[in-house]
Amino acid sequence: MSNLDLMRELAIEGKTKILLLVLDGVGGLPLTPDGPTELEAAHTPNLDALAARSICGMSIPVAPGIAPGSGPGHLALFGYDPLRYEIGRGVLEALGIGFDLQPNDLAARGNFCTLDSAGLITDRRAGRIPTEVGARLCAKLRRIQLPDVETFVEPVKEYRFLLVLRGEGLYDGLTETDPQQVGKPPLPVQPLRPEAARAAELFNMWMAEARRLLADEYPANGCNLRGIAKDPGLPKMPDIYKLRCGAIATYPMYRGVAKLVGMEVLPTGETIEDEVETLKQHWSEYDFFFFHVKKTDSRGEDGDFVGKVEVIEHFDTLLPEILSLEPDVVIVTGDHSTPASWKAHSWHELPVLLWSKYIRPDGVKQFGERPCMAGGLGHIRHIDLMPLAMAHAGRLTKFGA
Amino acid sequence: MSNLDLMRELAIEGKTKILLLVLDGVGGLPLTPDGPTELEAAHTPNLDALAARSICGMSIPVAPGIAPGSGPGHLALFGYDPLRYEIGRGVLEALGIGFDLQPNDLAARGNFCTLDSAGLITDRRAGRIPTEVGARLCAKLRRIQLPDVETFVEPVKEYRFLLVLRGEGLYDGLTETDPQQVGKPPLPVQPLRPEAARAAELFNMWMAEARRLLADEYPANGCNLRGIAKDPGLPKMPDIYKLRCGAIATYPMYRGVAKLVGMEVLPTGETIEDEVETLKQHWSEYDFFFFHVKKTDSRGEDGDFVGKVEVIEHFDTLLPEILSLEPDVVIVTGDHSTPASWKAHSWHELPVLLWSKYIRPDGVKQFGERPCMAGGLGHIRHIDLMPLAMAHAGRLTKFGA
Repeated sequence: MSNLDLMRELAIEGKTKILLLVLDGVGGLPLTPDGPTELEAAHTPNLDALAARSICGMSIPVAPGIAPGSGPGHLALFGYDPLRYEIGRGVLEALGIGFDLQPNDLAARGNFCTLDSAGLITDRRAGRIPTEVGARLCAKLRRIQLPDVETFVEPVKEYRFLLVLRGEGLYDGLTETDPQQVGKPPLPVQPLRPEAARAAELFNMWMAEARRLLADEYPANGCNLRGIAKDPGLPKMPDIYKLRCGAIATYPMYRGVAKLVGMEVLPTGETIEDEVETLKQHWSEYDFFFFHVKKTDSRGEDGDFVGKVEVIEHFDTLLPEILSLEPDVVIVTGDHSTPASWKAHSWHELPVLLWSKYIRPDGVKQFGERPCMAGGLGHIRHIDLMPLAMAHAGRLTKFGA
Repeated sequence: MSNLDLMRELAIEGKTKILLLVLDGVGGLPLTPDGPTELEAAHTPNLDALAARSICGMSIPVAPGIAPGSGPGHLALFGYDPLRYEIGRGVLEALGIGFDLQPNDLAARGNFCTLDSAGLITDRRAGRIPTEVGARLCAKLRRIQLPDVETFVEPVKEYRFLLVLRGEGLYDGLTETDPQQVGKPPLPVQPLRPEAARAAELFNMWMAEARRLLADEYPANGCNLRGIAKDPGLPKMPDIYKLRCGAIATYPMYRGVAKLVGMEVLPTGETIEDEVETLKQHWSEYDFFFFHVKKTDSRGEDGDFVGKVEVIEHFDTLLPEILSLEPDVVIVTGDHSTPASWKAHSWHELPVLLWSKYIRPDGVKQFGERPCMAGGLGHIRHIDLMPLAMAHAGRLTKFGA
């Protein structure tokens, strides 16, 4: 029985509230062997005090050695095995810019590229053209008309854009055009199953038109389509966990993933203070809150150790206000590590703390990677967190008689 | 998705080097409850210094409680789930004596046995006859001719030998002749699928001839065939990990297993010094090295605690020379435990250390079982080691977007 099947079988309704606080990319690395990680360097009296009355541990987002993207990292936090439930690249791109994807839409991630006179790719990213240029080219590509379907072309960033086809009878199961190496031409989209043949034909018509429209541009005189996909139709958290779920996140990507798993996405502002305000406003309406802090990851990706420390410290000052709402279960962790020294998502385990009235304190007094290595939760996986949260909230019945 | 599928999907090429140092059977047990294990008793300043700047932990070769043979123990180290990928006993026997097994050969492990006048087995190991007697009997059995196939009979040790049939159209899927108890006769080889019928017939012809040739011998007046198998055609490490893989081992068995997973086996001498020399000579040619030290296991099997300590100490003196090559990732562990007090492979977890620039030090200052139990890697599995090595070498892309 899968994790989610077990939850679906055992979950019961209740009045308790679970708060999942996700500091995106919070896991870090020391800059010198004896130095602290970002989280350890941060002055976090409130997180430390919470850790001292919690059970702590380390959590593996997907599997040892695997650095997850934001999609798999969050699916795992919500209890979905990311090796089983995949969100296509096109769908993630749509979520990332807040595009209102419909269940039958086919979404593709587009990459502008450079072609030589023979039509072979010489640069898969078109020299990373500025975002403004990408936007202008997308405006041009919006002129493309396809029979019986609506098309949407939206700029994302630099050489990346989103293409969505909307209409009846569009099936997924399509190959991508990117040959993944230079010196080859973009490949035709091919259907992997008979029902997808029409969609393949439409994407190929679009590609031919796009090539004609881009012919006089440079370096972005061509493009590729990757990860053509639909909303994966994931099982929904309210059905699985019998929880009314609210999501508070400032970035479209995370709001989008939350929507895919059936959470209600609450309107909020740009800052963590805005998010806390949103949490307070809606506190009575939901049983589960996903509260997402983005900037820890952003500073990690920038390689900005000090900046990441500051985001953590900022969050720490707001923690007492959050905890004053008196949740029954609190989890603090991240979706993955983003060490400033690595400047990207990494595979490293995440420190995690779990507080409820029903935990066994483990002597960990500081919320940091090294203290949590010795924590009472041991080394768990992200997909274990929701079952633990549910249990500590008194929302799971006994398994078997 | 399996471990290996995930690696195949995420692996990227790079310039980094991974060094897997395997001390065969290094895990041990204390002789008294408060005493040290072999590794803890050994004076290992270099391993300890490396542990202090590494992340440490304990690793389970196959599954809790399972004592692996050399085949499964090493497959797991190389990232192959040994419960999924099996190497037949006959193939392992061939590898163990350095027999140059061809892809279509059928290899059987032979055991001389003692039969009574009714043809029933009275001793499944023929009184553990000396190796020289076994060799003489093998010479005799080489006289057996079979239609259209070549046969090879090679002594292994005491009552054990190797039988290989080579020819066209030989399929595996065959039962063994050993009834696994005394008082029964050797069983006929039976095909488990129709294609294997001819091979079964050939093995049975061979068995009949062998019985005739051995009739005037004693106690080895009969034999059995076990684990009749082919090269399992394992996926190859260079394809999975995009690593050029070199193997350095003094014993045929380990060279053989390395060859099965697609490593290039480097010629070397008899000593660890010879192996270090080989490593240095070939350092520029490979991205991954499997470096195998045999004698830790041998001394453990002998029940020679002090001898095992000495092998570990000897290896320790050579470690600085090895590390001076500046690998990007170093792993030190064993394939399984071989405690001197147990005199055999055991199921106990193995201490493991992982060094790279991107680890979180965990405060473990000594490479030994008890210190590593508190290590930051926690309790992992051997099949997790290659993904971790690949990640720390910067040779895996992100999973999902």
